[in-house]
Amino acid sequence: MPTLGELATHLELELHGDPDTPLDGLAAIDVAKPEHLSFVSEKKHLHRLEKTEAGAVILHPDWLEAWSGSALLSPTPYVSYAHATRVFDNHPAPSGDIHTAATVAESVLLGDAVTIDAGACVEADAVLGDRVWIGAGVYIGHGATIGNDTVIKPGAVICHAVKIGQRCTIHPNATIGADGFGYAPSDAGWVKIEQLATVVIGDDVEIGANSTVDRGALEDTVVDDGAIIDNLVQIAHGVRVGRQTAIASQAGISGSTQIGDRCVIAGQAGMAGHLVIADDVHIGGQGRVASSVTEAGHYSSGTPVQPLRAWLRSASRFTQLDQMAKRIAELEKATGLDQQEDGKA
Amino acid sequence: MPTLGELATHLELELHGDPDTPLDGLAAIDVAKPEHLSFVSEKKHLHRLEKTEAGAVILHPDWLEAWSGSALLSPTPYVSYAHATRVFDNHPAPSGDIHTAATVAESVLLGDAVTIDAGACVEADAVLGDRVWIGAGVYIGHGATIGNDTVIKPGAVICHAVKIGQRCTIHPNATIGADGFGYAPSDAGWVKIEQLATVVIGDDVEIGANSTVDRGALEDTVVDDGAIIDNLVQIAHGVRVGRQTAIASQAGISGSTQIGDRCVIAGQAGMAGHLVIADDVHIGGQGRVASSVTEAGHYSSGTPVQPLRAWLRSASRFTQLDQMAKRIAELEKATGLDQQEDGKA
Amino acid sequence: MPTLGELATHLELELHGDPDTPLDGLAAIDVAKPEHLSFVSEKKHLHRLEKTEAGAVILHPDWLEAWSGSALLSPTPYVSYAHATRVFDNHPAPSGDIHTAATVAESVLLGDAVTIDAGACVEADAVLGDRVWIGAGVYIGHGATIGNDTVIKPGAVICHAVKIGQRCTIHPNATIGADGFGYAPSDAGWVKIEQLATVVIGDDVEIGANSTVDRGALEDTVVDDGAIIDNLVQIAHGVRVGRQTAIASQAGISGSTQIGDRCVIAGQAGMAGHLVIADDVHIGGQGRVASSVTEAGHYSSGTPVQPLRAWLRSASRFTQLDQMAKRIAELEKATGLDQQEDGKA
Repeated sequence: MPTLGELATHLELELHGDPDTPLDGLAAIDVAKPEHLSFVSEKKHLHRLEKTEAGAVILHPDWLEAWSGSALLSPTPYVSYAHATRVFDNHPAPSGDIHTAATVAESVLLGDAVTIDAGACVEADAVLGDRVWIGAGVYIGHGATIGNDTVIKPGAVICHAVKIGQRCTIHPNATIGADGFGYAPSDAGWVKIEQLATVVIGDDVEIGANSTVDRGALEDTVVDDGAIIDNLVQIAHGVRVGRQTAIASQAGISGSTQIGDRCVIAGQAGMAGHLVIADDVHIGGQGRVASSVTEAGHYSSGTPVQPLRAWLRSASRFTQLDQMAKRIAELEKATGLDQQEDGKA
Repeated sequence: MPTLGELATHLELELHGDPDTPLDGLAAIDVAKPEHLSFVSEKKHLHRLEKTEAGAVILHPDWLEAWSGSALLSPTPYVSYAHATRVFDNHPAPSGDIHTAATVAESVLLGDAVTIDAGACVEADAVLGDRVWIGAGVYIGHGATIGNDTVIKPGAVICHAVKIGQRCTIHPNATIGADGFGYAPSDAGWVKIEQLATVVIGDDVEIGANSTVDRGALEDTVVDDGAIIDNLVQIAHGVRVGRQTAIASQAGISGSTQIGDRCVIAGQAGMAGHLVIADDVHIGGQGRVASSVTEAGHYSSGTPVQPLRAWLRSASRFTQLDQMAKRIAELEKATGLDQQEDGKA
Repeated sequence: MPTLGELATHLELELHGDPDTPLDGLAAIDVAKPEHLSFVSEKKHLHRLEKTEAGAVILHPDWLEAWSGSALLSPTPYVSYAHATRVFDNHPAPSGDIHTAATVAESVLLGDAVTIDAGACVEADAVLGDRVWIGAGVYIGHGATIGNDTVIKPGAVICHAVKIGQRCTIHPNATIGADGFGYAPSDAGWVKIEQLATVVIGDDVEIGANSTVDRGALEDTVVDDGAIIDNLVQIAHGVRVGRQTAIASQAGISGSTQIGDRCVIAGQAGMAGHLVIADDVHIGGQGRVASSVTEAGHYSSGTPVQPLRAWLRSASRFTQLDQMAKRIAELEKATGLDQQEDGKA
C-alpha cells in the first residue's frame, strides 16, 4: 500500500498534505473513501469535491481553492490519473516461462524472459522479442514477428508473417492477418485473390478483443505507432491507420483506405474503400464515410432516435425529400420569391 | 421417443387426444409430419393448421375450434414450445471429467461434477461451481468465479477476476473482461488507463458468440440477472445492462451507459457513453442513441432503403434540409401564412 | 521463380514478349518492378502503364496498343490476376499430420491426408474429408462434418452436427453453429428455446474471421455454394444465404431471412428478420433493410457525413420533416398550387 508521498515521487507531482497518508486504491470522486486516491480532470467537476471522502485527489494547481484535503498537483490531472492506474494495477503478471502445454516450433527465435502460456502454438520461424507474453491458446503463425514487451492475450490469432512492434497489446480473440476479402467476379462465381502481403503493426498499439485486421493482397495493411483500436473493429486489407489514431468499437474500415494521424473514429462508424482521410479528422458514431475527407474537423451523419411513430413519419418523408424540395422551388416561383432568393438553393 | 401423454405431464399442460401418440421431434407448423409436435403461438397463424400434418399441436385453449387433432393446451403456447425444445434437445452433454489435455492450476476451487474439456486453461485461484462446464480451449483467468451450472463454450475467454453467476451460458469465442478502451490524451499520445475493476454477470444470463464485455476502469461492468445478449455485441467498460434486457446482434453500448430492466435493443443499434436508459425501452435496428432515454416506449432512427438513384437524391437533399426549412419559413412570410400558422414550427 | 512462359502456360493465356523473363512476384501497377508481374483490370487504368516498371502485365488483348512490354493477354484480366495470385501464394502448407498435441476422439472418421494442428479438439463422431486441414486450437463439435479440402483456420469453433462442404475456408476465430438467439418472453423472464437444427454450409464458401453463423431452432441455417462472407458478419438462425452471394464485413442478417443468389451486401448493412431478398440485389454500406426486396438492383439508405455543425442542423430538421411537408402542403393550398400540382405528393 503506497503512501501519498511515494505516489507523489513516483508520479513526479507536487504534493499537498501529509505524505504518510496510506492509499490502497483509486476511485471515482463520488464514491472514493479515505483510503482512495481520486482525481478531478475538468474544472466543471470541481463541485463534486464538496462531498467526496477521498483521502487525496489529483487536481490542477489552479483548483486548490476548491479543496482543503491532501492533493497531488498536476497540470494534466487526467494523464496523471492514467499514470496512477499503473501503480494500482492488478492484472496478473507473466510467469516468464514456456508452459509445458505450449507448442513451440524448434526454429522459433525467443528473446529474453519470454512467457508462453498453456495451449499456445508458435509456428516455425516466428520471432518473439524480449519479455514478450504469449497468452493461453494464442496462435502465432509461421514467421510472425512480435516486438519486445508486447502482450498477445488469450485466444488471439496472429497469422503467418505478421509483424507486430514493441509494447503492443493484442486483446483476446483478436485476429491479425487473416485473408483480406478479395475475389474477382467471374461467370463461374467468385475467384479468390490470394492475399500475398501481410499486416505491419507499429509500436505502442492496442488492438481490442475480437477485432480483425486483415492481411493485404499486394500491399501490407499498416497500423502505425500509438494507434488504439477498440473491440470488434474491422480493418480491411491494405488499410493504413495513422499514428495515434483511435478507432472505437465496431467501426469498420474498408479496403485500401488511408486514415491520417490523430484521427478519432467513433463506434460503429464505417468507411468505404480507397478513401483518404486527413489527419485530425473526427467521425461521429455510426458515421457513414463514403468519400475522402480532406480537412481536419468533426464530421457526423445519421439521424437521431425518435419515438417510433414520429420516426416512421420522418423516415417516410425522407424518401420524399427530393419532391419536397421541388415543391418548395415551385412555390418560390409562384410567389416570386425565387427572384429575390436566387442562388440560395 | 416421448408420447404425447408424457409430454403433457412434463410440460404440465392439458392434453387433448390420444396420450399414446409417439412424438420424436418438434417442427414448424408448415413442415411438421405426424411424428412431430408443433405449435401455434398467435391467433393469426391459426389458418396454418388447415394444412399441417403435425401429430400434435401446442395451442391456446380458446383456439381448439380450429383444430381437431391432438393438442396440448397452454395459455402461453410460445413459452410451452420453448419448454418443449428442452425435451427434444440434442446438444451434447458434459462428460463430468477434467480432460487430461486441460491445464488447471492447483489452487483452483472445483465444485462437484465440474467438466473441463481438452485444451482449456484455468488459472490460479479461479472458483468453478457445481456442474460448471468449461469447454474446449476456454481460458479462465486468475481468480475468476463461475457459478453453478454455468457453461462456458469453446474458445471463450474469461479474464482475471471476472464473476459470472449461475445457469449462464457464454457462447464460443466471446471475451469477457478484456480491458475497457480507456486512454488519456497527452502531447505524447494516448496514455493507457489500466482497467482496475472487473465484470460482474448475474444469474441466467446468455452472452452470444464473439461478443465482448469489457472490464471497468474503476467501477465494474454489470450484466444483471436474466439479461440475454446476442452475438458480436459490444458492452463497454462501466456499462450496466438491466435485468431481462435483450440486446441483439452487433449492437454496441459505450462506456458507463446504464440500461434499465426489460429493454430490447435491436441489432446494430449503438449507444453513446454515459447515458441513462429507462426500463422497458425498445430501440429499433441500427438505432442511434446519442442521449438518455427517460421514458419507456419504442424508439427508432435511420432511413429506409431506397433504390440507389432515389436514395442519392434523398441523401443529397438531407444535407440541404436546414435551407429547405428556411425557405419554407420565407414562403410562409411572403404568403402571410406565418401569421396564421404561428408557433407551428 | 516462374518465367513468363511458364505463367502463360499455367494461366492458359496468350503471351506477348520474352517467355524467359523471370518473375518473382505480383505487384500493383504503380509500384511494380522489373521482377514483378502486374495487371490492368479496367480500361480507365491504362494510363498507369506509362510509368510502370513491371516486367510483364496481364491485360485485355484490345489494350495492347497502350503497352509495349511483355504481356499476358486475357479477356478477363482481373480474374487472371486472381489465378496468378495462386502461383505466388505464400501461405504455409498443411503438414498432413495429426499433431501429438491435438485431441481427436476415437470415433472420428478421418479422410486421407488430414492435417490436425496442435491444440485442436475434434469431438466424437465428427467426419473429416480428404485433405481437410484443422488449424491450431480449432474446435470441431460432435458429429460435425467437414468436406474434402476444407480448411478451418486457428481458433475457429465448429459446433456439433454442423455440416461444411468441400473447398471451404473458415477463417480464424469464426463461430459456426452457436445457438440462435431464440427466447420466449414470459412473466418470469426469457425462456430459452433450444436450437435443435444446425448449420449447413455448401461448397466453395468462405467465412471471415470472427464471424458468426448461428444454428437454426427448427430449420437449418444455410449458406449456399460459392457464397463469400467477410469478417465480423452475423448470420442468424434460419437464414439462407444464396449461391455466390457476397456479404461484407460487419453486416448482419436477422433470423429466418432468405437472401437470394448473387447478392452483394455491403459492410455494416443490416437486415431485419423473416425477409425475402431477391436474387442479384445489392445493398449499400450500412443499408437498413427492414422489409423484403422483390426486385434485383442497387439499394441504399442512410445519410452522408457532413461537418458536425451542418449535420446537427440536418439531423434536427429530419425530426421536423413531417411538419415541413405539411407546411409545404399548406403553402400550396394558400397559393393555389395544390390545384395545379394535384397528386404530386
